[in-house]
Order: sequence, then C-alpha cells, then structure tokens
Amino acid sequence: MHDMFAFLIALVSILFFAKIFGEISLKLGQSTIVGELLAGIVIGPSVLGLVHEMESLSAISELGAIILLFEVGLSTDIREFLKAGVWATAVAVVGVVAPYCLGYFVFLHFGFTNIQAIFTGAVLTATSVGITARVFMDLNRLETQEAKIVLGAAVIDDVIGLAILAVVLKLVQGGTVTLGTVASISGTAILFLILSILAGILIAPSIFRIVSRMKQDHVIFIVGISFCFIISAFSTKVGLAPIVGAFVAGLVLSTIKQSEEIKRDIKPIYAFFVPIFFVLMGTKVDISTFNPFVAANREILVLITILFVVAFVGKTIAGVVVFKKGIDRFLIGVSMVPRGEVGLIFAGIGLKNNVFGIKDYSALVAVIMLTTFITPIILKYLLSRQKD
Amino acid sequence: MHDMFAFLIALVSILFFAKIFGEISLKLGQSTIVGELLAGIVIGPSVLGLVHEMESLSAISELGAIILLFEVGLSTDIREFLKAGVWATAVAVVGVVAPYCLGYFVFLHFGFTNIQAIFTGAVLTATSVGITARVFMDLNRLETQEAKIVLGAAVIDDVIGLAILAVVLKLVQGGTVTLGTVASISGTAILFLILSILAGILIAPSIFRIVSRMKQDHVIFIVGISFCFIISAFSTKVGLAPIVGAFVAGLVLSTIKQSEEIKRDIKPIYAFFVPIFFVLMGTKVDISTFNPFVAANREILVLITILFVVAFVGKTIAGVVVFKKGIDRFLIGVSMVPRGEVGLIFAGIGLKNNVFGIKDYSALVAVIMLTTFITPIILKYLLSRQKD
Repeated sequence: MHDMFAFLIALVSILFFAKIFGEISLKLGQSTIVGELLAGIVIGPSVLGLVHEMESLSAISELGAIILLFEVGLSTDIREFLKAGVWATAVAVVGVVAPYCLGYFVFLHFGFTNIQAIFTGAVLTATSVGITARVFMDLNRLETQEAKIVLGAAVIDDVIGLAILAVVLKLVQGGTVTLGTVASISGTAILFLILSILAGILIAPSIFRIVSRMKQDHVIFIVGISFCFIISAFSTKVGLAPIVGAFVAGLVLSTIKQSEEIKRDIKPIYAFFVPIFFVLMGTKVDISTFNPFVAANREILVLITILFVVAFVGKTIAGVVVFKKGIDRFLIGVSMVPRGEVGLIFAGIGLKNNVFGIKDYSALVAVIMLTTFITPIILKYLLSRQKD
Repeated sequence: MHDMFAFLIALVSILFFAKIFGEISLKLGQSTIVGELLAGIVIGPSVLGLVHEMESLSAISELGAIILLFEVGLSTDIREFLKAGVWATAVAVVGVVAPYCLGYFVFLHFGFTNIQAIFTGAVLTATSVGITARVFMDLNRLETQEAKIVLGAAVIDDVIGLAILAVVLKLVQGGTVTLGTVASISGTAILFLILSILAGILIAPSIFRIVSRMKQDHVIFIVGISFCFIISAFSTKVGLAPIVGAFVAGLVLSTIKQSEEIKRDIKPIYAFFVPIFFVLMGTKVDISTFNPFVAANREILVLITILFVVAFVGKTIAGVVVFKKGIDRFLIGVSMVPRGEVGLIFAGIGLKNNVFGIKDYSALVAVIMLTTFITPIILKYLLSRQKD
C-alpha cells in the first residue's frame, strides 16, 4: 500500500504552488507555464523538498502530458491546418530545420555526443502555439496576416516536431544512426499517423453517433478520452511517444459533431492534470546548477546563453522566407520563438532515457523558460510600434 | 519506469466496460453502480483478466473514492440536514443501530471473529442516498413527506457511518476492543470533525474571496479540490479514513458562495475518477466464489443469503419508528435498504487491512449489489400502488 498521506500532500503542494506562481506570472504578463515550472523548482528536491519521486504522481503527470496534447489536437482545425497555405508551411519548415541544424552542429562542436546533439536540436524545434496566440489575442491582432501565418506555422511545426520525436526516440532506444534507420522509423511513424487519422475520421462519427444515444452523464467525454488513451497506448507499440497518439486522437475528434462537448468537459480535467505535469517537470531542475559563484557552473551558464541564442536566431530566420508585400517578417520570426509544452516533453524524455544528465536538462528547461519569458515582451513592443 | 502501455490499456478497459455495463444497468432501471461493479468482475482476474493490481491505478481509484465523498458533501445542504427533523434522525439512528447489532450478533454466532463481526456490522450501516433519491425523482415523489424523511435520514446515516468507520479503523489497526478505546477513538474523531467543520466555515469564505479574484481558469475548483485533499490527508493522521475528511471538506464548501462553480467543475472529474473506483472494487471480487456446484462455496451462498436478510430487515425496521399519521412506514424502511458507495468503501478497507479474505469480501460486495438491485424494484411497486 502506498503512503496516502504523502501522496495527497504532494498533490496539494503541487496544485497550491502552481496556482500562486501561475497567478504571479499572469500579473507580470507571462504565461502560467513559466509560473508552474518555477513552482516546481521551488517545491522540488533542490529547494524546499516538498515533492519527491512517486509512481502514482508520475502516472498522473504522464496523463497530464497526454491530456495536454489531446487538447491541442482537439483545438486544431484540420481544415484551417490544410488552408494555412504556402507561407505558413515555409515558415514552419524553416522554423524546424534552422534551429535543428544550428543546435545540432553548434553542440557537436561543443563536445556533445552525436545523440545528445540530435536531441538538443529536437528540443529546440517545436513552437508553442499557446503563448504567441495569447499575445496576439491580448492586443486584438488575431486577424492580421502575420497572426494567421504564425499560428498555421506553429501547428505544422508541432506535427513535424512530433515526427522528429518519433525518430529521435527510436534512435535513443536503438542506438545506431544511419540514413536507413531514420527513413524506416519516420516511415513507420508517418504511416501510423496517416492510418490512424484516416481510420479515425472514418470510424469516429459512427461510434459517437451510438455513444450520443447513451444516457450516462458525460459519456461522450469519457468515450472521447478512452479513444485518446487507446491511440496513445498503441503509439508506444510503434515506437512513438504516447503524446503523439494523443495529438492524433484530438485531431480526429476535432472533426466530429460532438467535439464541442468533449472540449467543454476536458477543461476541468485539463486544469487538474496539466499543471501537475509542468510542476513535476520543474521539480526535476537542479537549481544549484545555476549558481554563478560555483566555478563548475559557469560552463552551464555559457551553455544556456549559447542555447538561447541558437533558439532565438533559429526561429527568427524562419520569418525571412515570407516574401510577401507589407508583411513584418521580423514579427513573424519572433512570434515563433517560444518553446513550451512539446519542448519540455522532449527534454523530459531525454532525461528519462539518460541522454542528458540533470545539468543539461536543467539548462534546457531554463532556455525554454527564457524563450517563453522574453517573447511576449518583444512582441508587445513590435506590435505597439506597428500600430503607430 | 512503469509500463505506460499496460496502464493506458487498463484505464481504457475500465472506462469502456464501465460505460457498457452502466448503460445496460440504466436500461434495466438499475443504478450505474451495479453495472460498474459487474464490469469490474468481468474484466478482473477471475474472468477476463484485463486489469491487474497496479500502484498508479490504485492511486487513481483512491482519489475516486475521495472525490465521490467530496461530491456527496458538496451536495449536502447543512441547513436541510439540521432541519431534517426528529423523524429523520430517529430513522437514521435506528437504521444504523439495527443492522449493526443484527449483523454483529448473527455473525459472531456464525463463527466470525469479534473484529470481523464488528466490521460486517459497519459495512451494513450506511444507506446510499443516490439510489433512493433517483427512484423518488423518476416517479416525481421527491416532495412527499416520506422522501424528505428518507433523504434526511440517509445523510445523517452517512455521517454516523463515517464515525463508525473511524472507530472500526482504529480498532483494526490497534487490536484491542474495550469501551474505553471506543470512547477515546470516537471522541478524537468527532472532535476532529467538529473542529474542521467550524474552522472551515470560518476560514473558507475569506480564502475563496481572495481566490475568486485570481484570473486562472478553473482556479476556484482547483483550490476547492486542494482543500479537500488537505483535509483528507490530515484525517489519516487522526486515524480517520481519507474519505471522512473529503466528506467534511465538501460539507464546508457547500456553504460558500462559490460552491456552484466547484460543483459544476467537479462533474467531469467525477465522471472520470469515480467509475474507476467502482470498477476496481468489482475486480477484487472472485467470481468462482459464487459457483454453487462447488461444495465449499455453498457456505458462502448461505452467508450471502443471511447477510442479505440482515441487511434488508435491519433497515426496514427503521421505518417502524415513524409514528406519524398518513405515513407509509414500510416504504420508508425499504427506501433505506440500498447500500452503495460507503458500504463498498468499508468492505474495501476491510479487505486491505486483512479483516476479511477474498471470499468474505466477495460475499459483502454481492450483498451490496443485491440491496442496490432489489430496492428500486420494490420501491417502484410500492409507489405505484400508493398512487391508486
């Protein structure tokens, strides 16, 4: 029997600190994710030590990551996604390739192993849709051309990022990196994704037609989330991360008539599970890594600086490809800078599979937090200047 | 690292079978609880073997029990509860004392140990408000005098039941049973309950006044559920079951202005967690115990029959005390027969603390299912007869 007292107190600490730090973040015009990560650092073993590793907590946190990506999928409109157009696709592709290659070569140069450099590159690829969307929304600019290109690109970017994760994960578990293995892995992953989407779009409407005749409370939502869990479970069987399956499940269910009901019911579940995921990610950061008075740490601080420059430059380059009149290319580039959920999940998977040690993981989380922290400030400045 | 695939597949099996069997139960005019328990028996080790013991599943199921009692507390109107009046209190007290004493003495007579007989008595005490309320609601009789007495009594009954659980739990963990220990244990438990309710009613409004100024989504709900977890956690420190704390937390929060928001947000969480609790309770039943062709099982079938008679007679006696003109006393008594959530939780605690073996546990679950199964049928007959 596990320790119920410790489990409940850990849950309360996580939720309580998440809300306090989340609220402070909002007050400072920041994303709640930054606050939740900070909350994790504070209650984690390296500061207060309120929360320790526990199987039941990890399970809830992993469900949190799955529910997060399920929700991202649900909110993605496949039609918008296909309409996003040439420029969004171009921005997305450059926005993945540039930071990936920059990250890979810079870190290989800095003495990282091949697999570490590949993973670092992967962590730097995925744009966080949420943060950018919120800034555009706050300033009433969601209808501008820039916003549409950026949001389209961020979604495509997520999909490419998840495909990269699939490849990277297989490499970590397998070991050797050849063009052949990369091709076969991405082939399997892409085939699984396409087949699940097609099968889902064909089967889901009939399933939910039957389900919507059932009389139990919230039955559509429960069947929806079961659908998500089952695709997530089978993703792991073809070497994909469960979150990839969750995203696909969300994408499929966003097309059915009952999607609004699922989206409504998932909100409180999201509010409960997802902060637990971000806070636990934060607890894995070792704060002492960042103490500049310890000589050994200076290397890490240099690493963070370089990672940040790579992360920032890699994405701003992406804006340059939009050769369209009257478009603020720099604005588009900067909008793509924040890395959020997906980058964190990648970093966490790297830590779990011993690609990184705790120091490198802490540095990556710090960089993700920095990109999320700085972008809204620059964006608000650029958008207010544009207004004049 | 735990096995993500097995965990997700177990979750999906639980939710899927819960909905199928729950729906069939509803169609047959039964409570979904019966269906969920049956689902558990079917997917459990004794039939299909889809779900096995797993720490992460147990944690989620225990949260399910906590959320269930939190919701019961939230839906309990303390004022109604105090107004419920003399007759409801009388029915409740007799409805606890009669099955408890009957259960205790009959089972002592049948060769149970002292502690087993005490626990069996406790399992038989708590009326399930939900099932009876649903029948009255279905037949539009919620406004009758009988309904008001029964619902009031069922709530008082729950509170007495939880107090009994506190005592029984301490006895199980301590060992010796003297009047002194019983008095000191119930004293501590009652003191804790009264103090938490008073402190909660004094402090909660100020806390939630501050919280309602916060801007994060669903923050009131998250703080509410944290409040529930913290009281549940500290309940265990005074020897109370966490569900007792959860009920008290719900009771306290039912009095604040923001209770509607908490009640609304808890619904999808409830729909996700609570069936997992009931299904897992079902998986612990060993179906082979009920096979009448095995000679050794006949004893168990006799036990179930006796338990059921005790459970039925013990509660119907409670109706007799209402000396009020024009009241259907038998109807009141029968309405108190269904045992549900709380009885199951008691039985589960008994199994976990090795008071019962798997056979006795299976018999108790069978009896709880029988009471829940048969009452609506008798009630509907009695109420339709009354109409003429």
